[in-house]
Amino acid sequence: MSLLYERVAESLRGQIRRGVLRAGERLPSLRRVGRQQQVSLATAVEAYVQLEREGLVEARPRSGYYVRGAAPDLPEPALRRTPRAPCAMRNPALLDVLDVLTRSDLLPLHAATPSLELLPAAGIAAAVARTMRRHRDAALRYAMPQGQPGLRLQIARRYAHCGVDVDPDEIVVTAGAMEAISLALRSVTRSGDVVLLETPTYYGLLQAVAALGLRVVEVPNRPGAGIDVAQLEGLLARHEVRAAVLVPNFNNPVGSLTGDAGKQAIVAACAARCVVLIEDDLYGELAYSGTRPPPLRRFDRQGGVITCGSFSKMLAPGLRVGWAFGSRWTDELLRAKCFSSVATASLPQLAIADYLAHHDVDRPLRRLRRELAANAQRYRDVVARYWPAGTRVSEPVGGMALWLELADGVDAQALFEAALAQGIGTLPGHLFSNRDEYRHHLRLSCGLLWDAKIEQALRAVGALADRLRKEK
Amino acid sequence: MSLLYERVAESLRGQIRRGVLRAGERLPSLRRVGRQQQVSLATAVEAYVQLEREGLVEARPRSGYYVRGAAPDLPEPALRRTPRAPCAMRNPALLDVLDVLTRSDLLPLHAATPSLELLPAAGIAAAVARTMRRHRDAALRYAMPQGQPGLRLQIARRYAHCGVDVDPDEIVVTAGAMEAISLALRSVTRSGDVVLLETPTYYGLLQAVAALGLRVVEVPNRPGAGIDVAQLEGLLARHEVRAAVLVPNFNNPVGSLTGDAGKQAIVAACAARCVVLIEDDLYGELAYSGTRPPPLRRFDRQGGVITCGSFSKMLAPGLRVGWAFGSRWTDELLRAKCFSSVATASLPQLAIADYLAHHDVDRPLRRLRRELAANAQRYRDVVARYWPAGTRVSEPVGGMALWLELADGVDAQALFEAALAQGIGTLPGHLFSNRDEYRHHLRLSCGLLWDAKIEQALRAVGALADRLRKEK
Repeated sequence: MSLLYERVAESLRGQIRRGVLRAGERLPSLRRVGRQQQVSLATAVEAYVQLEREGLVEARPRSGYYVRGAAPDLPEPALRRTPRAPCAMRNPALLDVLDVLTRSDLLPLHAATPSLELLPAAGIAAAVARTMRRHRDAALRYAMPQGQPGLRLQIARRYAHCGVDVDPDEIVVTAGAMEAISLALRSVTRSGDVVLLETPTYYGLLQAVAALGLRVVEVPNRPGAGIDVAQLEGLLARHEVRAAVLVPNFNNPVGSLTGDAGKQAIVAACAARCVVLIEDDLYGELAYSGTRPPPLRRFDRQGGVITCGSFSKMLAPGLRVGWAFGSRWTDELLRAKCFSSVATASLPQLAIADYLAHHDVDRPLRRLRRELAANAQRYRDVVARYWPAGTRVSEPVGGMALWLELADGVDAQALFEAALAQGIGTLPGHLFSNRDEYRHHLRLSCGLLWDAKIEQALRAVGALADRLRKEK
Repeated sequence: MSLLYERVAESLRGQIRRGVLRAGERLPSLRRVGRQQQVSLATAVEAYVQLEREGLVEARPRSGYYVRGAAPDLPEPALRRTPRAPCAMRNPALLDVLDVLTRSDLLPLHAATPSLELLPAAGIAAAVARTMRRHRDAALRYAMPQGQPGLRLQIARRYAHCGVDVDPDEIVVTAGAMEAISLALRSVTRSGDVVLLETPTYYGLLQAVAALGLRVVEVPNRPGAGIDVAQLEGLLARHEVRAAVLVPNFNNPVGSLTGDAGKQAIVAACAARCVVLIEDDLYGELAYSGTRPPPLRRFDRQGGVITCGSFSKMLAPGLRVGWAFGSRWTDELLRAKCFSSVATASLPQLAIADYLAHHDVDRPLRRLRRELAANAQRYRDVVARYWPAGTRVSEPVGGMALWLELADGVDAQALFEAALAQGIGTLPGHLFSNRDEYRHHLRLSCGLLWDAKIEQALRAVGALADRLRKEK
């Protein structure tokens, strides 16, 4: 018995030491600790009393145990203050690009979403119908904030396939990966904290980080190589980084895979410095090789990783069902979820759980991967044959993004606008940078069902690039 | 022509002066300004050039116009800093209450959601089926971040019924009212800003505000009377309040209605001090009188109100479809939406739009209002007859909350726990306070279909209150 409570106490001491539990924060309830650590309520009580004796925590009547230290309650403001500078936002031009993202009249070489023709739309539709027939009331009622238990079980099973143990009780179902990352950032960081991102990286991550008033340091992700681990280690040594938001599996826009050794080193470096790792595992299932690479969590011994993912790129974008999990952070994620959107919509959750329970999802996934891999090669071929000599293009190994470096310094924004004028959507590279880099890069998406129209559009953008090059 | 551009310029000057547009922020695109103010692109250009001449704004190449002033870009962090105190959070005990909120084994006198029996569930189910039949692909694809146009039109029409002009293009569809308010707060405030709330008020608002690191001042909302406007004016004079989050239509938990004169005074007081008003209009359609009271927007001449609402309490809680609108803030709301959840799920949006297009929603609403009003009276009767003498209970005029003050200082937390032990869910009053008030208050919800089991449960909680009173 005494060994058991000491193990629980030591785990909590570590969390306080590493700042996972901060001064003034409430410790998990005794029941929850008991459940998490698989000990009796009495053992949990003993552990808390021990920490109280050590002066690390304090009990507050009818409320629970708290880490001792600062933390006044939500304070009354004093008096009128002078206005402050606004939270800095990069890439404000993004809002104009958003207009583009939502235009339905474009040939969407810009949209990183697979065509419905490549997804099991009929199976999902059948699952929706079955759900409404069998579970109509549950589909229309509020779901639990944490998410529908059957769906959480399916998510945990999917991760078990790639050797990752996830407790369904640590999973929080979200409205897609973007909400998952946003909740994770809000759970882990405070305004002014430093966050490490890749460069280039998905503009949505840059925006989410900027919106929270966070500061950024950037580590390169290179086509064909992935995250530069040595640089990451150097950055962690120089800056007090609170969290890293990384996409080791098929970074968007680069399409690279960071190998297992790199992942292991990243997890170790972050653990050593108490940096919380937030992994965007959105594209993990879309490996062209057919072998799903593990998420960072696979190498995590200390519970320092929050894994975020979604069914958006593999089943149904419009149902907006994703997830976040990270054992230490369940309470925080859940609270953030509750008070930003209460719960994810019930019908989409139940429909996806039904689909996963009734279908072998690996079948449509195999087809999707094969088509994406073929598309990437087709895009590369067209670029090689029809774009100006000197154009460089990434060789993605998963996902659906291609990253092009334009020949002879052609301006990507100009190319973006010229293509737009011809009804073709692309994305200029600087969206993927926090420092206005990549002015000569372009991102294309290869998620569409290949046909002559796409080939024509790709050739047309190449011709525009050539014209811009000559006009210089 | 010259008068037109001057009108546009003056509107923007005012926004800069009032801090709606802050130093370093990007002005709306020329196209957007043209659309908003119904002038040609040339006139918008002329207005911007004029403001540039005056030194108020500056053009940045390929990016747009910015308010001149401070605002460095998302900065590189310098060096390791000392840790800061965490963002203060009140009501941490809430997480245990959340466990309660999601337990399905309780008799839910705590859940402020109507029984499905009181909602048009069959009609919604038919709308889901129709949507999947007619618009399957759109239901499974990403929706526009701003929301499905047909749904936005229906929302605008609904507001037109109560005399409020809303442009469908200013509406942002959200995952319920909670996301709407969270987006509004994130669009308008920065960490450290002061926000005015009612007391008592919905604990979700307190949590959302705390999570953003905002500070709080509180204005009383009284059963039968509504928001204390004189106190509100005094608070605005004493504190530099950035935004007010108010529930004038059937405040939860008090159930009061703030009258039109009060609303008008609130809008005027906030406009005079450039305080952004965020209205939670979640219960607006649930007036027991049958007359839907106007939202604050009705009295807004300056575009200083953001209206948030949802179909959760009137059609289908589990579909998670709500909205936020406020003409000035469309860009900010849209950006916050994009980078926190990309878009609201498509199928629920389309299904609700379909329902509204094919049904007279006022019919089920009439029934719902009638049942809620009858329930409130039934609850009051049971409390009057069976609870300890001296128990006071609110007389709501809309919504589904009852607010009880327990007799002889009975402790609400103790009553909450005793009821829980008997399988009955209630909510202790202190959840609805930022200052640990309402220790002797209890919130009950009257959204369930009335039956003998509910009456028994209500009487049982009354008996427990009596026992606690005697034990004191």
